[in-house]
Amino acid sequence: MSQERLFTPGPTPIPPSVLEVLAKPIIHHRTAEFQTVLARVTAGLMRVFKTKQPVLSLTASGSGGLEAALVNLASPGETVAVLHAGKFGERWVKIARAYGLKVVELANRWGEHFEPEQVAEFLAGEAKEATMLLMTHSETSTGVLNDLEAIAKVARTHNKLVVADVVTSLGVHPIEFDAWGLDAVISGSQKGMMLPPGMAMVAFSDRAWEKNKSATLPRFYLDLRSARDNINKNSTPFTPPVPVVLAMEESIRLMEEEGLDNVYARHARHANACRAAVKAFGLEMFAQRPSNGLTAVRTPEGKDSTELVKNLREQHGFRIAGGQAPMKGKLFRLGHMGYYNDQDIRDLIQAVGTVMADLGWSSTSADEAVNAVLTGASS
Amino acid sequence: MSQERLFTPGPTPIPPSVLEVLAKPIIHHRTAEFQTVLARVTAGLMRVFKTKQPVLSLTASGSGGLEAALVNLASPGETVAVLHAGKFGERWVKIARAYGLKVVELANRWGEHFEPEQVAEFLAGEAKEATMLLMTHSETSTGVLNDLEAIAKVARTHNKLVVADVVTSLGVHPIEFDAWGLDAVISGSQKGMMLPPGMAMVAFSDRAWEKNKSATLPRFYLDLRSARDNINKNSTPFTPPVPVVLAMEESIRLMEEEGLDNVYARHARHANACRAAVKAFGLEMFAQRPSNGLTAVRTPEGKDSTELVKNLREQHGFRIAGGQAPMKGKLFRLGHMGYYNDQDIRDLIQAVGTVMADLGWSSTSADEAVNAVLTGASS
Repeated sequence: MSQERLFTPGPTPIPPSVLEVLAKPIIHHRTAEFQTVLARVTAGLMRVFKTKQPVLSLTASGSGGLEAALVNLASPGETVAVLHAGKFGERWVKIARAYGLKVVELANRWGEHFEPEQVAEFLAGEAKEATMLLMTHSETSTGVLNDLEAIAKVARTHNKLVVADVVTSLGVHPIEFDAWGLDAVISGSQKGMMLPPGMAMVAFSDRAWEKNKSATLPRFYLDLRSARDNINKNSTPFTPPVPVVLAMEESIRLMEEEGLDNVYARHARHANACRAAVKAFGLEMFAQRPSNGLTAVRTPEGKDSTELVKNLREQHGFRIAGGQAPMKGKLFRLGHMGYYNDQDIRDLIQAVGTVMADLGWSSTSADEAVNAVLTGASS
Repeated sequence: MSQERLFTPGPTPIPPSVLEVLAKPIIHHRTAEFQTVLARVTAGLMRVFKTKQPVLSLTASGSGGLEAALVNLASPGETVAVLHAGKFGERWVKIARAYGLKVVELANRWGEHFEPEQVAEFLAGEAKEATMLLMTHSETSTGVLNDLEAIAKVARTHNKLVVADVVTSLGVHPIEFDAWGLDAVISGSQKGMMLPPGMAMVAFSDRAWEKNKSATLPRFYLDLRSARDNINKNSTPFTPPVPVVLAMEESIRLMEEEGLDNVYARHARHANACRAAVKAFGLEMFAQRPSNGLTAVRTPEGKDSTELVKNLREQHGFRIAGGQAPMKGKLFRLGHMGYYNDQDIRDLIQAVGTVMADLGWSSTSADEAVNAVLTGASS
C-alpha cells in the first residue's frame, strides 16, 4: 500500500483518529446506537452548513448529490440557468440536459470567476425564464472560488433559486446557508470533511422544499423528500455508508475542537503560503479569485505539468494533480483542503521547488516567502 | 462502540483482514495503484457473478443499483413485469412507477416463492406486453429464495429480459450470470461480500446492452454506459468508494482461498443448522423455499418477536432482525450470510434457545439437532 502524501483536491488525507473509527467492527444501521450517531452527525453538519434545515446524507459521490438536488427541484422542460467556467460547472449542464431541462448558460473562460454584475445581467436577460441558478462555489478544475454570497444575493433579487455545488468549499471556506439565502447546497465526504468518499450531503431551504412539491422529474433512490422524512426519525431511506457516518462524528469533533473559524483561517494561511510560493517561483496563478482549498498554477510556457506531477510523486512521494480536460498539462494543482498543518505545506512547497529546479523551470527557493506567511511575518 | 455480534441480514460482520484494509490511509482514485486494484476487483467480481461481462461498481446502496439497472434498460411508458412477495420485490414496483413505467404485477403472499409454471402463465398472459421481468433472488423480508435459474429459463422462453436483485444471494448461493441467461443482476457490498455498505455492483448481458441503446429513461449519475466505458479503462465516471473497493480485493481473496463452492456449502450447512433448530424448537419456518442467507422463523401464535429480539440483544449481545412491514412482530430473522463459522451458528442457536425458554416459548434445546448438521452426522 502506498505511503504517498496526498496533496490532491480530494480525496484528502484522513486523520488517524478518523481512520480508527473506520477500522471498528460494523454496526447495524437500524439500531438506536446508529441513530444516535446519525442524529449527532446531522446536527454537526447543520452547524457546518450554518443552517436550521436538516442536512441529508446520501450514499453517493458528490455528483449523485448534484443530481439529487436538481431532480428534486425541477420538472421536465423547465429552464435552468448555469454558470460554468470549468469541469464541475459543466457537470450541471450535463445533468440538466440528461433530464430534458432547457439550459441557459453563462460560460466564462476556464480560470475566470463570475462577477455579481455579470450574473445580474445574465439573469435579467438571457436567463429571464430560468427558475433557478446552478453554480459551483469552488471550481476544482481551475482553483477558482466564486463569491457565492454576492451571487446568491443577485439571484434572490431576480427571484431564482440558488443551487450551489460546495463539494470542495465545505470545511474550507465559511458557508452560511441560511444567512446567504441559499436554496440547495451539495457537498461530499472526501474533501474538507477529511473522510473517505462515499457520502453526499444536501441541504434544501424552505423555498426549495416548496418548489419540490410541484417538481415532477422522476426520482426514487435520490428522492430527498423521503430522505427528509427519514432523517426526522434519525434514519435513512436506504442503507447509509455506515463507516463514513460513524467517522464523520469524529471529523466534525476535530473541526469543532479546532474551531470552525480557525479551520477556515488555517486554510486561508495555507492558500496564502502557496500563492506566495507561486509568486516567488515566478509563476502565475491560474485563478484570479482563488479558492483556499487548492492552488492551481499555470505551467511555464512550453512546459508540461505532467512531468512535474510525475517527478514529485516518484522522487518525493507527493501526489498532486495536473490539469483536467482542456487544461491537461497546462496546470498543476496543489490541494490543501482538510487535514494539513503548516509543516505539510512547507514540505510540499520545498519539494515543488526542488523538482522545478531539477526541471529547469525555476531556480528560486520559495521557502522564505512561505515561511513569512506561515509564521505571520507577512500577510 | 458496540461489541454486539451481528446476525442480521446485512450489514454483516467484516473479517479482521478486511477491516485492516479499511483502516489504511486513503489513496487517490485516479492513480495507477488504484486502477490496478479496481481491475483485480472487477475481474474477481466477474468470477463471483460467473460472467464474461464487466461488473460495474457504483457508489450507491443496493437500491441505487436496482434503479441503475432499470433506468438503463427502459423507456417512458414501457411495460415491465414484477414478481413480488416481500419488501424488496415491492421496491421494484416503486422504482418502476417513479419512472412512469407501466407495471404488471404477480404478487404472492409474503413467505411464498414463485413457481416457474406460475411465472410462465403470468408472462404468457397478463404480462404479455412486458419487455422485462424484475424479480428478487433472495427476498430478505421473508427469507425466501426464488429459483432464479428456472424462472430465468421461463422468461427467456417468453422473450423477456431477466433483471434480478441478487443483493442477499451473491456470495451465499451460486449465481451463474452467463449460463442462466440473466440480463441484469444487482448486488451490494454489505451482505455476502463481507464489506461495509457503500457500493452496488451491476452486470448487464449483451442483450441488456443492446436494449440500453434504445432506452430513454433519464439518467446521469446512474448511467451504466458511462460506467462501462470507464471500467474498460479501469476507472469510474465518479468518485468510487475507495476503501470499499480496496477492501473488496481482500474479501474476494478470502472467498477464493476458501473456494467459492466451499463458501456456498458453508452457507448451506449454516442454513440447514438453523432450520434444524427451528424444527427442534417446535417452531415454523416462514419460507417454504428458504434462502441460505437468512432464516425467517414464524413467531409462536400470540407472541411478539420484538421481545425475543430485544432479550437476545440485551442479555446475550446478539443482534438479529424482527419482521418488516406487515410481518413486524410476527417473524424473527437469523442472518447468516458472510463471515460466520460453525461455532458462531452454535452460539446463536444456543442463545436463541435460552431466550425462548426464558420467554416460555419453548423449553427444548436445539443443540443436538444443530450439532448433527454441523458435524455432518445428519444432512
